[in-house]
Amino acid sequence: MSKGELTRQRIVEQAASIFNQRGYAGCSMQDVMEATGLEKGGLYRHFSSKEELAAEAFRYALKRAVKLRTTDVDASHGAIGLLRSYIARFVETPSDLPGGCPLLNTAIDSDDGNAVLRGLALEGLRHWKARLSAVVKEGIRGGEIRLEVEPRRVANTIIATLEGALMISRLEGAKTALRDAQASLDTMLSEISSPELARNEASPRAS
Amino acid sequence: MSKGELTRQRIVEQAASIFNQRGYAGCSMQDVMEATGLEKGGLYRHFSSKEELAAEAFRYALKRAVKLRTTDVDASHGAIGLLRSYIARFVETPSDLPGGCPLLNTAIDSDDGNAVLRGLALEGLRHWKARLSAVVKEGIRGGEIRLEVEPRRVANTIIATLEGALMISRLEGAKTALRDAQASLDTMLSEISSPELARNEASPRAS
Repeated sequence: MSKGELTRQRIVEQAASIFNQRGYAGCSMQDVMEATGLEKGGLYRHFSSKEELAAEAFRYALKRAVKLRTTDVDASHGAIGLLRSYIARFVETPSDLPGGCPLLNTAIDSDDGNAVLRGLALEGLRHWKARLSAVVKEGIRGGEIRLEVEPRRVANTIIATLEGALMISRLEGAKTALRDAQASLDTMLSEISSPELARNEASPRAS
Repeated sequence: MSKGELTRQRIVEQAASIFNQRGYAGCSMQDVMEATGLEKGGLYRHFSSKEELAAEAFRYALKRAVKLRTTDVDASHGAIGLLRSYIARFVETPSDLPGGCPLLNTAIDSDDGNAVLRGLALEGLRHWKARLSAVVKEGIRGGEIRLEVEPRRVANTIIATLEGALMISRLEGAKTALRDAQASLDTMLSEISSPELARNEASPRAS
């Protein structure tokens, strides 16, 4: 990376932290200048507007969150096992960017506001739903999940329950709501498993 | 109400709409002056600071949301029926204050920010959880809900799933996620019902 690219990257990382904590309206270019130690000219050389910087910062924040929630997730125990692993990762590993989940924050922040951020949040949500739906479809194809299960409904329920529980957990300053969500989603996953598979699980064998 | 009280009430109502859509940082006293048509002196006669006004506006917004979600909810079909009615009301009747659910908005907005608003959001959440937990406890006492069910877990799961689904629905501009959440919560409620009751429900009778 050139020196200019490094500076740009540093701006994006620091802006991502501030935007994720304070929201779009709560973070000014002045705040970013103070956080990065750059002069106005230095900052505007890289980003011509707050909107441009906020979009870039959100892309970075979301990529980081997705990486944290998907890297090395255990995929060796079938579709239901993989869904349980995604859920466990979300519950156990909080965002490493201050301010919580960037998708939740930006969705709430932009639903009456910035159209560019709203579009990016929607895109992030669609990717997440597609990833979870694909696992459910794979589970149905493999006979692990009941045929009549609606992949979209499972994906929506997992995302909604986790994000809602994160909201509660952050407000309460305790993990209880996230653990409760995990327990309820676990029950849902047992429910959608094929009866045959549930029987096999009851009599474990070497795999 | 005196003329002064009426003016104060009008300020609170209009501020509640703006804060609920734009968040604390996104709404200035100037915005409230413009919305109400009041001069600076007129506004500050009633509220000495933005923080004081935001707190009052949130109290008003939350009270209005709770009223909308609880008034005339059908309580004539036992605990499980009442929980289903609360869920259906949330899914079918959106906030009549622009910007969506004030509890969700303020929780996300204040979790890294304003401590007064955060405290009020936490209080609102506790009341909601207590209301739902009480219904679950009543259902357990009456033999309608399984003895081993944890009321807190049910309350947390209902709130998390509904609020998370509302986030998705507002972002997507469609009710699908809320309907999916409702279907999944319906299954959870059937799961926690006593087996005896489930049998009785299968053979309906006059009540």
